[in-house]
Amino acid sequence: MVLTYNGLDKQGQPTYGGYSSHIVVNEQYVLKVPPALPLTGVAPLLCAGITTYSPLRKWGVGKGHTLGVIGLGGLGHMAVKFGKAFGAKVTVFSRSDRKQKEAERLGATDFATISQPEIFTRLGRKFDYLIDTISGAHDYNGYLDLLKTDGTYILVGAPAEPISIKAFSLILRRRRLVGSLIGGIRETQEMLDFCGEHGITSDVEVIPIQHINDAYERALLGDVRFRFVIDLKSMAENTP
Amino acid sequence: MVLTYNGLDKQGQPTYGGYSSHIVVNEQYVLKVPPALPLTGVAPLLCAGITTYSPLRKWGVGKGHTLGVIGLGGLGHMAVKFGKAFGAKVTVFSRSDRKQKEAERLGATDFATISQPEIFTRLGRKFDYLIDTISGAHDYNGYLDLLKTDGTYILVGAPAEPISIKAFSLILRRRRLVGSLIGGIRETQEMLDFCGEHGITSDVEVIPIQHINDAYERALLGDVRFRFVIDLKSMAENTP
Repeated sequence: MVLTYNGLDKQGQPTYGGYSSHIVVNEQYVLKVPPALPLTGVAPLLCAGITTYSPLRKWGVGKGHTLGVIGLGGLGHMAVKFGKAFGAKVTVFSRSDRKQKEAERLGATDFATISQPEIFTRLGRKFDYLIDTISGAHDYNGYLDLLKTDGTYILVGAPAEPISIKAFSLILRRRRLVGSLIGGIRETQEMLDFCGEHGITSDVEVIPIQHINDAYERALLGDVRFRFVIDLKSMAENTP
Repeated sequence: MVLTYNGLDKQGQPTYGGYSSHIVVNEQYVLKVPPALPLTGVAPLLCAGITTYSPLRKWGVGKGHTLGVIGLGGLGHMAVKFGKAFGAKVTVFSRSDRKQKEAERLGATDFATISQPEIFTRLGRKFDYLIDTISGAHDYNGYLDLLKTDGTYILVGAPAEPISIKAFSLILRRRRLVGSLIGGIRETQEMLDFCGEHGITSDVEVIPIQHINDAYERALLGDVRFRFVIDLKSMAENTP
């Protein structure tokens, strides 16, 4: 298999992952994309999509549940779409009200700007589930206290440094803090099929390879709705 | 109800909890003790017993599972007994080898002295479940890495200060950190019935009320096997 980027193949040559013109794949690792879905919006489903689909399914998010999505980026916007499709009432937590309209468009029924601390009182013990998509350092305990008894706090993003958790917030209300990384091939196919049935894709900005440096700078600033997808046809074109 | 200690009753008089000579209880809060069990060994089941029974049941500890019990005190010794009775293979983690014989007598099949860091290599990714009964500050991340994929780390003791958790240990292996406080009346009765069927009680040292100060000092030193129980008949005797 020559799937990873910058590995070495059997001849000792570097591999190009998704930038390859041809790849050889074991058939057990090939996925079937529902034909009705546009490929550009499907590409991020294989990362942001399955990363959020898998834990929401595993922990049983469904009809009538309350789900809080912390952070509205590539992962967060998929968590909103899946949460809504599974029947949950979704609240988005974001740093400012800049993304409120986007959140509503994606299917959220409530929006909370965490720069206003009163939301932690207003929403206290209201949630069955939280999914935290933020990879930077931030406070976890304010969110933990938003969970009902037996509530589940799902981590799919996290900083490399240890995080600080009030154990008694877990103990007193029998809450749980759980991690999830990605999903297996079988579950990824299930997710793609679900997306086909419900018309779900990632919201993307398609760019030619020549714009990669701009896109990189914008991604660092969080200025992307919600994933960049490179059109590899542009590889054949001259650089501008 | 006049059940708590040092509350106020309807007449504004202080209440004596378990030290009362008479109490009035709503029948829904009365438990039935299996007649074969000695009352002295049953008393701590209503606290240390149900505190460990409830999360081990809720998270499905059973036949063939590996369970690590962190700390061998009042809670820990009950977790060993229940874990064994549920069919799990139990390892005790303790600060020194002082309690190794006790751990084996209680039903543990393995014992690890955490002053020897090599145990964290030897036992890496070996456990389906861990139950942490330690209320003092200590490291959690070494233990977290002992869990298999999808493993469960149950907190029933914890320090008041926030604890430091490596989120990526949860994320990379889909582990979960869960809290549990006690159990409800229905589950407490289920626990008592289970104890009656399996001949399980707490290991206790019965003391007269006159020895309470010595017992208090010994409890602070962790020098008790594994709970003190006061024989309230001694209340009627002269102090020595």
